[in-house]
Amino acid sequence: MDSMLDERRDGSGGDTLVPPVNFSMVEEGVYRSGFPRASNFAFIETLNLRSIIYLCPEPYPEENMKYLQSRNIQLFQFGIEGKTEPSVSISENTITDALKVLIDVRNHPVLIHCKRGKHRTGCLVGCFRKLQNWCLSSVFEEYRSFAGVKSRVTDLRFLESFDVAALRHNLYSIIYQYQGYGSKKRRLLYKEETLQKPPRITSN
Amino acid sequence: MDSMLDERRDGSGGDTLVPPVNFSMVEEGVYRSGFPRASNFAFIETLNLRSIIYLCPEPYPEENMKYLQSRNIQLFQFGIEGKTEPSVSISENTITDALKVLIDVRNHPVLIHCKRGKHRTGCLVGCFRKLQNWCLSSVFEEYRSFAGVKSRVTDLRFLESFDVAALRHNLYSIIYQYQGYGSKKRRLLYKEETLQKPPRITSN
Repeated sequence: MDSMLDERRDGSGGDTLVPPVNFSMVEEGVYRSGFPRASNFAFIETLNLRSIIYLCPEPYPEENMKYLQSRNIQLFQFGIEGKTEPSVSISENTITDALKVLIDVRNHPVLIHCKRGKHRTGCLVGCFRKLQNWCLSSVFEEYRSFAGVKSRVTDLRFLESFDVAALRHNLYSIIYQYQGYGSKKRRLLYKEETLQKPPRITSN
Repeated sequence: MDSMLDERRDGSGGDTLVPPVNFSMVEEGVYRSGFPRASNFAFIETLNLRSIIYLCPEPYPEENMKYLQSRNIQLFQFGIEGKTEPSVSISENTITDALKVLIDVRNHPVLIHCKRGKHRTGCLVGCFRKLQNWCLSSVFEEYRSFAGVKSRVTDLRFLESFDVAALRHNLYSIIYQYQGYGSKKRRLLYKEETLQKPPRITSN
């Protein structure tokens, strides 16, 4: 914090921040990136994360785990193999479980990451975009902008076939309101939260 | 709005949304994209924009202008030539002027766009990242993720040489507080706003 205070006093830029590789903001309270290293912790500090969605089967590194514990950040791990064989595709169930954590505002701000922030993270974010009603071509464009030359046809097929309608109906078993950017935020809110504040959705 | 309300009732996904090409969220209240078309208006609706930063010299299309006026969205135009000659670089002054509009929270939510959302938009966002203390390699990585194979060495040189310190001192002539993601939001707040609410910066 000192650097921030100094910054305000003397106008200096403060310490340089190093975001994790492939870092980006997905939505309010939702971020994505590659695997965060210790050199990224100062930047991650500014996100005030409440949770992390980790999409690799490998155990979380001790150094990162210590950082999470020191900041009381909850870790949600969904072990998805980083396979490159065209035959292997991601499990719909695993992504659905991760989506349920992702759209639950009680876990926000949340950072989604795998190893490179390209394939596994790209698939989860892509399914989230489908849930947000993005057209498929835009979902693909976003996936490609992160995967670049490493884009996988199996991931694109997965994104196309992922049944978001089933998940939606699944989610309707819980009382919630949808939210999107601005006043139309697409978020999952549970009963107690819904009761606390009236729905933001207005009919203007 | 009806589709949103129907969505809540029957669980249908509502209408498909088409974000502008190269759309992305830069920060809370800051978006970037390529040139929005009429087919993107329904998506843009969900951003509840207060303003648009348009970086091309060409006059804004009548159709888009009508949309902005109907939604009371303010247009800030900074005419930057979309030149491709390696000799031509972007004017520091123009980017500085655009940055001043960009970091003013009174203009948020704001959408930055040029034609393709690659070069001119990439340069403005890159300078914004420098103002946010991002390390140069991360600024370059973000620029490349949008420009892709169209990345321009002149833009990277511009980003490297852009003097953010000068802008910072320039900004310090106004009373403001820095903000970043979460509690450390990097934003320009003017006197009256600063007086209204105490600085969010805490020294925990």
